[in-house]
Amino acid sequence: MSFEQRHGEYLARIERVLDQTLPAASLPPTRLHEAMRYAVLGGGKRIRPLLVYATGESLGVAAECLDAPAAAIELMHAFSLVHDDLPAMDDDELRRGRPTTHRAFDEATAILAADALQPLAFQTLITAPALVPYPLEQIRLVALLAEACGSNGMTGGQAIDMESEGQHLDPAALEHMYRLKTGRLLRAAVLSAACCPPGADTEQTHHLERFIDALGLAFQIRDDILDIEGTTEQIGKRQGADIARDKATYPALFGLPAARARMDELWAAAVAALDELPTPTEGLRWLAEQIVRRED
Amino acid sequence: MSFEQRHGEYLARIERVLDQTLPAASLPPTRLHEAMRYAVLGGGKRIRPLLVYATGESLGVAAECLDAPAAAIELMHAFSLVHDDLPAMDDDELRRGRPTTHRAFDEATAILAADALQPLAFQTLITAPALVPYPLEQIRLVALLAEACGSNGMTGGQAIDMESEGQHLDPAALEHMYRLKTGRLLRAAVLSAACCPPGADTEQTHHLERFIDALGLAFQIRDDILDIEGTTEQIGKRQGADIARDKATYPALFGLPAARARMDELWAAAVAALDELPTPTEGLRWLAEQIVRRED
Repeated sequence: MSFEQRHGEYLARIERVLDQTLPAASLPPTRLHEAMRYAVLGGGKRIRPLLVYATGESLGVAAECLDAPAAAIELMHAFSLVHDDLPAMDDDELRRGRPTTHRAFDEATAILAADALQPLAFQTLITAPALVPYPLEQIRLVALLAEACGSNGMTGGQAIDMESEGQHLDPAALEHMYRLKTGRLLRAAVLSAACCPPGADTEQTHHLERFIDALGLAFQIRDDILDIEGTTEQIGKRQGADIARDKATYPALFGLPAARARMDELWAAAVAALDELPTPTEGLRWLAEQIVRRED
Repeated sequence: MSFEQRHGEYLARIERVLDQTLPAASLPPTRLHEAMRYAVLGGGKRIRPLLVYATGESLGVAAECLDAPAAAIELMHAFSLVHDDLPAMDDDELRRGRPTTHRAFDEATAILAADALQPLAFQTLITAPALVPYPLEQIRLVALLAEACGSNGMTGGQAIDMESEGQHLDPAALEHMYRLKTGRLLRAAVLSAACCPPGADTEQTHHLERFIDALGLAFQIRDDILDIEGTTEQIGKRQGADIARDKATYPALFGLPAARARMDELWAAAVAALDELPTPTEGLRWLAEQIVRRED
């Protein structure tokens, strides 16, 4: 069975894990819990969890060990989307084809729901029964997640993104922002799987890092292109939102042809890294293709 | 030397630890890092770090082991203050006698600065050299912090607080909200020290829990009373803000005499718990007295 066929099972699996990880909507404070569930469930391509499972497959990690990092990283991703969409930030009304969390609930509830997803993500890593026998690996997972989300990761990237509206960045500065904003969490997805038992050796880790660093940038440039070429229906968020806010993006700064050329270059680098990985790479390869060819 | 004299050294110590833990303001993204430092440094009574050090003293924990949990808990406390003060929440303009973070910077920067303090808190727990030889204790510290801050802790308490504006809560519901909103993080401060090596036994932990659960409630009721009786200058935030927003507080719902009587009761319970603790309690006793007698 190919990963293309298996990926549906992983999608069902992560949906189930997330559902069980989130507090029940019937538990008080109910409105907060409803908002947390709304922000995480019922939508999303689950690219980060799929990267965790595909990397784990490549390295022979049991899926039970991968559930917690996959869920933790998706919770953290959902947290960032809720805050990025707030009126004080990107002020978006649509996400994953539905009203953003602050529109569906209210601003205070959206801020708090996202705030509560962060500790839940860390809690998930350290309470997962499959990982409890591996305390050093759990600590490494906490470290990977914390580094990916702090001021030198996702949150720092969003801060630079906000500051860069209407600014002219050179390619290096733009790619640095991308590496922080989306790259670090994608990287954490791959490296989290690589630090679960049995773990990757230094050489495998090196190739996986090269792979995801290139793919992470390609992912973000594809996102920028879709903001221009996609429809609101396809991408589930308002088409043209980046241009409307004069965001610093690859195509906006350097044009669509340059953006496409850079994406192709990064795609080739990602594939070259996989070619050197001595373990099976079918899942990662398929997923990488989906990421750069995606229409949503 | 009494704890009253020693506490100044602990205050200098935690200030130094926080300063070193926070990213330098000169590091990019500079505005984000400036806001993180503004939110944490230069103010605050540091009650939670002092609780960590005083509990650690009682149990014979080396101060080097206590620095990381003390800092992590204070970072998390600062995170919550920044978000609670936002226009969409309590809309406060003054905190610790200075403009709130969103007033000193801007709303987006304040949201992100606080967001970045959360992962930094977890990172602090797992990278502190003094704790690296104790992975199981590190995991317990992560668990205590995560539980204290999630939807069944501080963030959940803030959500109930927002929902309860203008509502009549009975004493049990009000105290439940207090236990989540401020109690859980104070509890984490004491229990974090208790789980550092050499660690507390079950009996010691039990008495410490009774102590901090009573003191935590007394702390919050004292806060409510100060909102009514203090001056803006004393408390460093706008006096009467709770009443202006029709917040559900002990004195607002049940009157000042009932609030004072409840505080005295809780104070007695906290002291009774300390009386049963077989280890030295001078620091905790002094700190508890400061907390319930404080004028700011």
